[in-house]
Amino acid sequence: MENSEPAAKTSKGIASTRKIVVLRWGHRPQRDVRLTTHVALTARALGASGFILSDTVDQKIKETVEKVNRNWGGEFLFEMGKPWKTAVKDWKIQGGIVVHLTAYGENLQASDALKRIRSLKKDILILVGSQKVPKEFYSEEVSDFNVAVGNQPHSECAALAVFLDRFFEGKELTKVFGNAKIAIVPQKRGKKTRVEC
Amino acid sequence: MENSEPAAKTSKGIASTRKIVVLRWGHRPQRDVRLTTHVALTARALGASGFILSDTVDQKIKETVEKVNRNWGGEFLFEMGKPWKTAVKDWKIQGGIVVHLTAYGENLQASDALKRIRSLKKDILILVGSQKVPKEFYSEEVSDFNVAVGNQPHSECAALAVFLDRFFEGKELTKVFGNAKIAIVPQKRGKKTRVEC
Repeated sequence: MENSEPAAKTSKGIASTRKIVVLRWGHRPQRDVRLTTHVALTARALGASGFILSDTVDQKIKETVEKVNRNWGGEFLFEMGKPWKTAVKDWKIQGGIVVHLTAYGENLQASDALKRIRSLKKDILILVGSQKVPKEFYSEEVSDFNVAVGNQPHSECAALAVFLDRFFEGKELTKVFGNAKIAIVPQKRGKKTRVEC
Repeated sequence: MENSEPAAKTSKGIASTRKIVVLRWGHRPQRDVRLTTHVALTARALGASGFILSDTVDQKIKETVEKVNRNWGGEFLFEMGKPWKTAVKDWKIQGGIVVHLTAYGENLQASDALKRIRSLKKDILILVGSQKVPKEFYSEEVSDFNVAVGNQPHSECAALAVFLDRFFEGKELTKVFGNAKIAIVPQKRGKKTRVEC
């Protein structure tokens, strides 16, 4: 992502200052619009710096993410249409690593995959797809790690959430999003928001 | 859930033997089918004992969950059509507590909500909805806790995943699902499964 520099500024309050970008592969416009939107908003809310909707465009998702950015703040980047191979190649040229989330990979709990990923201290491109991703995703040319958030079939949205929560050691949940128009004031009961500046 | 006893047997390898059931409110057949399926499969894969699709029926989701159960094992319960008020009432009569996941609630990271929930040592019904749930969800009559997996808008699927991962302290990711026809053999590269018995 050529214009990804500003994203680094959003990581205040996050354990790591390393940049994480999520690449969503296999999105089918209309059919997947809600799910992919959830994946993008999960990436934003749980500490990632940006989101790439690869190989396709979907204005609806772009609009939703941009609206959330405007209202709720932060500098989360959204990009779409780039072929996944180009995105991976660009990422690696810039010195980043690629983590593919898949139920077939090393178990996040039972293995030391997260420790090994952290020890590299590099920016991370997380690949999330649907059940049948291209075989190449598993190859050394593409993924540096294949990580399973449990080895049962479930959801790329859930897998991404758990991975980010563990990577940032929970601190992403208290991240402050700058330039917000609105913010939630946490409550035991009811709904309270405050209008910012 | 009247027939929920067998679910307790699925909790081998999980930190807590307490039962967690997820209630999904506000599902719109067709429009939400993929998202609600992901929520149900996340509940199953991350250690919950059952799932209630409240106030509506959707055969497609039922079939998917049952197919996953048949192939991948475990004794995850699926129920649909029950009004949410009845489900909550029944749960409380049986001595369980209700945790409503909402971006407006107590921050899971910044508060001691999880500690207080755990200290009660009771079965938990987790309510997950869409953005506009009935006001009553926040009231003492319904929710014992309103918990936010971060106070930013994102996804009920992601919120559920993080809550379950923290509640079970990660151990749910290595849970063994009995009576499976197929199981994944975790790999650093490629896809490997084994056929069970």
